[in-house]
Amino acid sequence: MTEINDTPHDEIIREDVLDDDNRLTDEFVRSVSDAVSDNDTTLAQELVNPLHNADIADLFELVDSDERAPLAAALGDLVSADVLAEMNEHVREDLMDALDASQIADLTEQLDTDDAVAIIEDLEKGEQQAVLAELDAEDRAAIESALTYDEETAGRIMQREFVAVPEHMMVGDLIDYLRKNDDLTTEFWEIYVVDPAFRPIGTCQLSWILRTPRDIAIADVMKREQSLIPVNMDQEEVALRFQKYNLISAAVINDDGRLIGMITVDDILHIVEDEASEDVLLLSGAGDGDINEPIRNSYIARVRWLIANLATALVASFVIAIFGAAIEQMVALAVLMPIVASIGGNAGTQTMAVSVRALAMNELTRSNTRRIIGREFRIALLNGATIAVLVGLGTGLVFANPMLGGVIAVAMLINIVIAGFAGIFVPVMLDRLDQDPALASSVFVTMITDTMGFLAFLGLAVGSGMVSL
Amino acid sequence: MTEINDTPHDEIIREDVLDDDNRLTDEFVRSVSDAVSDNDTTLAQELVNPLHNADIADLFELVDSDERAPLAAALGDLVSADVLAEMNEHVREDLMDALDASQIADLTEQLDTDDAVAIIEDLEKGEQQAVLAELDAEDRAAIESALTYDEETAGRIMQREFVAVPEHMMVGDLIDYLRKNDDLTTEFWEIYVVDPAFRPIGTCQLSWILRTPRDIAIADVMKREQSLIPVNMDQEEVALRFQKYNLISAAVINDDGRLIGMITVDDILHIVEDEASEDVLLLSGAGDGDINEPIRNSYIARVRWLIANLATALVASFVIAIFGAAIEQMVALAVLMPIVASIGGNAGTQTMAVSVRALAMNELTRSNTRRIIGREFRIALLNGATIAVLVGLGTGLVFANPMLGGVIAVAMLINIVIAGFAGIFVPVMLDRLDQDPALASSVFVTMITDTMGFLAFLGLAVGSGMVSL
Repeated sequence: MTEINDTPHDEIIREDVLDDDNRLTDEFVRSVSDAVSDNDTTLAQELVNPLHNADIADLFELVDSDERAPLAAALGDLVSADVLAEMNEHVREDLMDALDASQIADLTEQLDTDDAVAIIEDLEKGEQQAVLAELDAEDRAAIESALTYDEETAGRIMQREFVAVPEHMMVGDLIDYLRKNDDLTTEFWEIYVVDPAFRPIGTCQLSWILRTPRDIAIADVMKREQSLIPVNMDQEEVALRFQKYNLISAAVINDDGRLIGMITVDDILHIVEDEASEDVLLLSGAGDGDINEPIRNSYIARVRWLIANLATALVASFVIAIFGAAIEQMVALAVLMPIVASIGGNAGTQTMAVSVRALAMNELTRSNTRRIIGREFRIALLNGATIAVLVGLGTGLVFANPMLGGVIAVAMLINIVIAGFAGIFVPVMLDRLDQDPALASSVFVTMITDTMGFLAFLGLAVGSGMVSL
Repeated sequence: MTEINDTPHDEIIREDVLDDDNRLTDEFVRSVSDAVSDNDTTLAQELVNPLHNADIADLFELVDSDERAPLAAALGDLVSADVLAEMNEHVREDLMDALDASQIADLTEQLDTDDAVAIIEDLEKGEQQAVLAELDAEDRAAIESALTYDEETAGRIMQREFVAVPEHMMVGDLIDYLRKNDDLTTEFWEIYVVDPAFRPIGTCQLSWILRTPRDIAIADVMKREQSLIPVNMDQEEVALRFQKYNLISAAVINDDGRLIGMITVDDILHIVEDEASEDVLLLSGAGDGDINEPIRNSYIARVRWLIANLATALVASFVIAIFGAAIEQMVALAVLMPIVASIGGNAGTQTMAVSVRALAMNELTRSNTRRIIGREFRIALLNGATIAVLVGLGTGLVFANPMLGGVIAVAMLINIVIAGFAGIFVPVMLDRLDQDPALASSVFVTMITDTMGFLAFLGLAVGSGMVSL
């Protein structure tokens, strides 16, 4: 993604442009907005000119949505293809709506395949066809071929620009080859060594080449390749490979084992961030969770989750309804109910968050599931005992009713232990059923802790003879 | 971190060793365990020998904790410094307890400063001094100097091995310099160009050097440096710079602007993952959330949170207690209460997760806070109206009480709108007070939605004249 001329402007950025956290300041954003609304395009361009592409992209995300089109018009060529590549997809879609197919085609032709695909894959089918028709034959073929792979797989995020050489080549010949071939990419961190069938057999860091005399064969410098990425591999899996093996770039192969692309770590950084964020957002049912997403999409994603939650809350209500007579006899039960449910839910969420992350990081496997369950059980016992003593004593004293204190203490202990089990069983089961544990776990865990909490508390109250049904 | 001989074994890894997700299979882990418990070190080493260092580290994480020391003893030299560097810190600490200071010193001397520091910083003070005393003078100075910086800052994660050259140097001279100096690092992706005071003025990707004729000056190839990392910068901030500017490596400078270290993206990948995971875990109050953490630590982290939650649950109980008389008159109120609280809590959590991630990613700034609040308000209105209609109609029908349906509908709408505001205000306020929004937001948000939910629902029930106090 980084081009030699990524930042064409060597000027010093004024101090009031970026704050301590490297974000555009409110004052700066407003000064650009004002220039645009005053139709002072010269001033707007002067202000934005020193910015890095990533900051220009941020600027579009920070202004109100109705200011984006005028801002783009005012900035003109400063809104380069690289700026679009850096931009939040929803904001980019907004802007692209104003462009025609040939303008979009011109922009994407300046990008590496992976960035061009990221822009084109978001277009509607008809628009996509129109843009593809405007591209020159080579770019069109590369992008069409990328689009044949599933979204979020290696085939979509790889670039087709890479350097591959035969193993008998000498270091000196390689350097000459790189100097003489103007149409090679300038952006690569490793070269791949391939056999005559173009299957990768090794990888060579550029630093190793630079530190080796000209008359040594590449085969003697390279590391044998162990981390080939099949083109259909899910991007989350690709990211885990990069993390596990500390990769900077990786060769992508097709079903025949031929080298067809390269994935670089700068793109993986965004995927790691996205996938980890996705888990926070999925666990809370916030859908895509992007602050630039259209309101309609956010509404649909979230309300669906709230309705699912409503269904599970009904189960808890049903349990309470069974004990209606008991509550009428002792309203203190209704007062204390939320404590049992809330702490139980929290304990379940803790274990669930730990399990979901461990599953996502491939740290929780069949080999250690039993040990981890044992571990969570012991933590739950400790937590449950602590909370039971606190709540039991407090309740006994406040309501001057030791029996009620005993009942809530035992109910808390039971519910926290159940919460511990639920927090690990539910994600592990979903994972074994090939479902995303982050997506559905919290509905089930909360339902279990709410229901079992009320059942234990109200059931024990009746069982102890304190109240009757 | 990657060494040329990172994977010293070119053998093909047997198919049953790694599963489809690239995790060690249970069968393989058990076969190694069995070999160790049979004292068959030859077999154990034969099995483990073909593995990548990262997989050997995983093996230690997967076996039971009491099997780890015997496994290390059986594997001998296969447990290299690089394996330790890849290992989960808690598992590594377990193992290191069995080693004496000179053994630890021998291991760390084989690592780059950043990895050596990562190992030594976890040792207890006395042990740390003993290990430092065993190191040779140069390594000791480097590590002691790294330890003077705060944990989780650039100074801790940078390595002191990098390549820096003056700007008048020609490409050809640079290549000769790299070939002739054996004590230079072999692991670098970019070189830094410095002025006579050793202040970085530019960065040069190795690919640009390899594609340029020998007689061109480095100054004509380099990109002017814009992303210098101050040595005291927080690692989360460093990671954001890498993501924003698509960096592969970055120069670290001291207060005088002198180049003192280099951070590479492979280490950043782990930080991005950790920081994003941290947010999931902090939001759920699961502390460190590491499945290898000692039980005692997990217990302390989690129970503290549960007790905080208990305090906030008491506020909700207090509200219910005020309305005790109303609940005695109509037990349906107690039955329906958890629905109001649960859905409200969920709606708040959704907005909160979105806000916390947007803050962490520097996407939510003073410039767009007002717009995002407006956005969340509109989503909350839509969600609230939808849920209000569903719950209101359902309640009215089930309890044959239209007034009760109306009361719960209005209460739901109010609580979901309040939840939307709380979900964004609480994290933004904590952020402005320089607190971590992920750490404390959910206690406050849940307290607000629980309390306001009960207050709205029971208050409206009384206000409508359906019940009295």
